[in-house]
Amino acid sequence: MKTYLNPAPDTWGDLLRRPTMAAADLDKIVGGVLADIEQRGDEAVREYTERFDGVRLDDFRVSEAEIAEARATLAPELKAAIQLARTNIETFHARQWEPVEAVETMPGVRCWRKSVPIEKVGLYIPGGTAPLFSAVLMLGVPATIAGCRERILCTPPDKNGKVNPAILYTADLVGITQIFKIGGAQAIGAMTYGTATVSSVYKIFGPGNQYVTAAKQLASRRGVAIDMPAGPSEVLVCADDTANPVFVAADLLSQAEHGIDSQVVLVTLSETMAKAVAEAVEAQLATLPRRDIAKEALSHSVTIVLEDRAAAVELINAYAPEHLILSVADAGEMGEQILNAGSVFLGHYTPESVGDYASGTNHTLPTDGYARSYSGVSLDSFIKKITFQELSREGLQGLGPAVQRMAEAEELMAHARAVAVRLEEKA
Amino acid sequence: MKTYLNPAPDTWGDLLRRPTMAAADLDKIVGGVLADIEQRGDEAVREYTERFDGVRLDDFRVSEAEIAEARATLAPELKAAIQLARTNIETFHARQWEPVEAVETMPGVRCWRKSVPIEKVGLYIPGGTAPLFSAVLMLGVPATIAGCRERILCTPPDKNGKVNPAILYTADLVGITQIFKIGGAQAIGAMTYGTATVSSVYKIFGPGNQYVTAAKQLASRRGVAIDMPAGPSEVLVCADDTANPVFVAADLLSQAEHGIDSQVVLVTLSETMAKAVAEAVEAQLATLPRRDIAKEALSHSVTIVLEDRAAAVELINAYAPEHLILSVADAGEMGEQILNAGSVFLGHYTPESVGDYASGTNHTLPTDGYARSYSGVSLDSFIKKITFQELSREGLQGLGPAVQRMAEAEELMAHARAVAVRLEEKA
Repeated sequence: MKTYLNPAPDTWGDLLRRPTMAAADLDKIVGGVLADIEQRGDEAVREYTERFDGVRLDDFRVSEAEIAEARATLAPELKAAIQLARTNIETFHARQWEPVEAVETMPGVRCWRKSVPIEKVGLYIPGGTAPLFSAVLMLGVPATIAGCRERILCTPPDKNGKVNPAILYTADLVGITQIFKIGGAQAIGAMTYGTATVSSVYKIFGPGNQYVTAAKQLASRRGVAIDMPAGPSEVLVCADDTANPVFVAADLLSQAEHGIDSQVVLVTLSETMAKAVAEAVEAQLATLPRRDIAKEALSHSVTIVLEDRAAAVELINAYAPEHLILSVADAGEMGEQILNAGSVFLGHYTPESVGDYASGTNHTLPTDGYARSYSGVSLDSFIKKITFQELSREGLQGLGPAVQRMAEAEELMAHARAVAVRLEEKA
Repeated sequence: MKTYLNPAPDTWGDLLRRPTMAAADLDKIVGGVLADIEQRGDEAVREYTERFDGVRLDDFRVSEAEIAEARATLAPELKAAIQLARTNIETFHARQWEPVEAVETMPGVRCWRKSVPIEKVGLYIPGGTAPLFSAVLMLGVPATIAGCRERILCTPPDKNGKVNPAILYTADLVGITQIFKIGGAQAIGAMTYGTATVSSVYKIFGPGNQYVTAAKQLASRRGVAIDMPAGPSEVLVCADDTANPVFVAADLLSQAEHGIDSQVVLVTLSETMAKAVAEAVEAQLATLPRRDIAKEALSHSVTIVLEDRAAAVELINAYAPEHLILSVADAGEMGEQILNAGSVFLGHYTPESVGDYASGTNHTLPTDGYARSYSGVSLDSFIKKITFQELSREGLQGLGPAVQRMAEAEELMAHARAVAVRLEEKA
C-alpha cells in the first residue's frame, strides 16, 4: 500500500481513482449470447453450459433429491450458523415494510402508497472456487419477506453437474421456489427471455463476473430491472489512535482477499497508526491462504494520513465507499457526518465480516462511487410502491379548478376537460 | 380505436404490444454529443444550443432579474393554482420520510438505516410547444424536502433566449438552486460531466424526447444515476356499467393528446359501454385543439370488452399500465387486486388529470411495462438509505462464531480472522 501524508484535497480524486472497465468489447460477446438464448432457448443454454462449465445437462432443474442430499451432508454447525444469519437478516428486513397510510392532502382528496411485491424475481449466484451461499441469504430472505411469487435462482454447475450443498441448503431454507444449474451470461439470458425450462423474470439480482455484469446491464435495456451496477468490492477503514492495528489490518485483508481488483483504502489520523497497521498487514499476510490475491489487491491500494477528522469525513464522502469501517473513539458521532457510503461499521468490534454474513444488514451494496446516489439492496428492492388516489365529488370541486388552470397553461385542453365534464355533471 | 370482444388471454400480449424503440442509432448520435461536452465543456454546449435551439447564448444562467420578471408577469390565478399543487405534493411527499429506527437483531448487535439526501441532483424540463411546469413541481418539491444540497434545472431556451415564465416561477417557488437555459442531450451531457458553468450531478431526473432519453441511458453507464427508463405515456381505463361514458372519453383523450405515440387502452365489461365511449370520444374530438395528435394516438389504441371483472384484473396486471383509472362501482376493492401499475385513480371523480398536476401524488411514473418492477418517483428517489451497524464486545462474542464458520465455508479466511483477532483480545 502506498502512503500519502496530508495530500491536498484537490489530489484526492487521483489518489482514489477506481479502475474503469472497458464495457464495449464485453457487450458484443455477451449480446451474442443473449440473442442466441432469446432465439434457441434451452438448447442454447445447454450448449453454453457445455462450453463454459464443461458439463452436458439434459435437465437444469435441481431436484428435491439433490436438496435433501445437501441437507443431509452439510455440517450441523454450518447449518446452525446459516440459520442464525437468516434470522437476523429476516428481523432487520421485515421491519422495512411500509404500512399503507392514506394522506388527505385536501378535503376529499385521499392519496396513499401501497407496497406490492415484484411478482417474479431471479437471483444469480456465482460458482467458482468458493460457494457464495451468503448471497443466497441476502437476496432470498428479502424476496420471501416481500412475497415475490416466483423466486428463482441460477448458479453454475461444476464439472460433474453438481451445485455446492451450502448453496442448495440455503436456497431451500430461505424459500427459493426453483433452482437451476445455469451460470454466466446464459443464466441472465434465460431469466430475461425465458426458455421452456426457466421462466422469465421482472428483476434480476446478484453478483457475478464481468460477463454476468455486462449481461445484466444489457438485460436492463430490454425491459428487465436489475439490482444495481456492479463493480469490484471496496472498503475504506478510518482509524484514529484508539484503533487496534491488528484489527484494522485484518479488516483490510478481508477485503483484499476478495479479488485482485478489490479496492482497499486506509485513512489514519497519525503516521504512527499507518505504520503499525502496515506491519500488522505484513504479519497477517504470511499465513493467509489467499495471500497472492490479497497481495495484488494491496499493491494498488492506498493509505492516506490526514491531520484532522474533518478532512477524513470530507475524503470519505468524496470517495463514497461501499463499506466504511469507522475504527475511531466516537464512531457514532463521526457516522452522523457520513453522506456517501453503502454500509457503515461503527467502532472497534464491528468488522465488515459481520455485515457480510450475519448482522442483519444486506451485503449487496453500491460500489464504484454509486453510494452517492444508490442504496444497497433492501426489502424495497423486491417491491414497487404503487400510488393510489381517490377523490370524492366534493374533493374534485375543491381541487378541480386549479387542475383546469394548470392544464390550460400547459395547453393540454383534454386534461382540463376531464375535470370540466365531471364538474358540469348535474347532481 | 379497434375493439376486441372477449379476446383469449393468450392473445392479450399481441393486442397490447407497445412499440419498441430503436436505440442503437440514437446512441451513436447522442454519444457523440456527450463526448464533445466532456471534452469541450461550455463551448460545446454553446454550439449545440445555437444549432438545435437557434440562439447563441453567452451565459446559460437564468438571472434573478429574469425570475423576478416571470413572477411579475404570470397570471395570479395560475400562480395560486401552482401554489395549491405545491402544497398538496409537499404534504404527500413529506410523509414519505422514514424515521431512523435501530433494530437489535441479537443482544449487542444494533442495525439501522438512515435516509441521506443525494447531494447533487439535476432536473431536465423539456421545452417545446407547452411549458411543462408541472414536471418542475413533481421533481423540485421532493428534491427540496429530501434536502439535496444542489438542485439544478436545465431547460431549453426559445429562439429569443428566453424560458417560459411558468417554468421560472415554479422553479423558484419550489427551491431550485440554479436554472440553466440548456436543452436536449447537451443538457444531460453538461449535468453528467460538468462544465465551467454547470456543476456535475449524481442523479438526473425528468422527461424528454428520444434524444434526452438516450442521453440519460448513456449517462447511467457513466456513473450518474437516472430516475427511470422512459417511454411514451400510457393510460388504461377500466369502465363498468356504472361509468359515465363522457368522463371515460375525456380521460382517454387526455392521454391521447400528449403525443402521437401515447398508449391508450379501454377495458369495458360490456359492449354497450364500449360503444357509448366510442361515440363520446368522436363527439369530444371535434372541438379538441390537439385533435390531430389525439386522432393519431387513438388510431393505434384498443378497446377490449371482457366478460368479467377477474379477467379485467388479470389483463391490467399483465399490461402494467403507467396510469390506471378504475371507473367502476367498487373501485377500492378492485384496486386491492392491482399488482402492476404506476398510479391508480379510483372511482368516477378521479380523472388522471388530478394526479398529473395537483392531487399530491407524483406524475413521474414507470412506462413501457416497467410498472412490473419500478415505482414512480417519490421522496425515495432523492435519497439513499445508508445502513449502519454497531456491535458491542458482547455482541461480537454472540454473533462472531457464526460469522467465522460461514466465512470458513466460503473459503474467505481473512473474513474469519477479522472476527478471531477481536475475540482473542485480552480484556
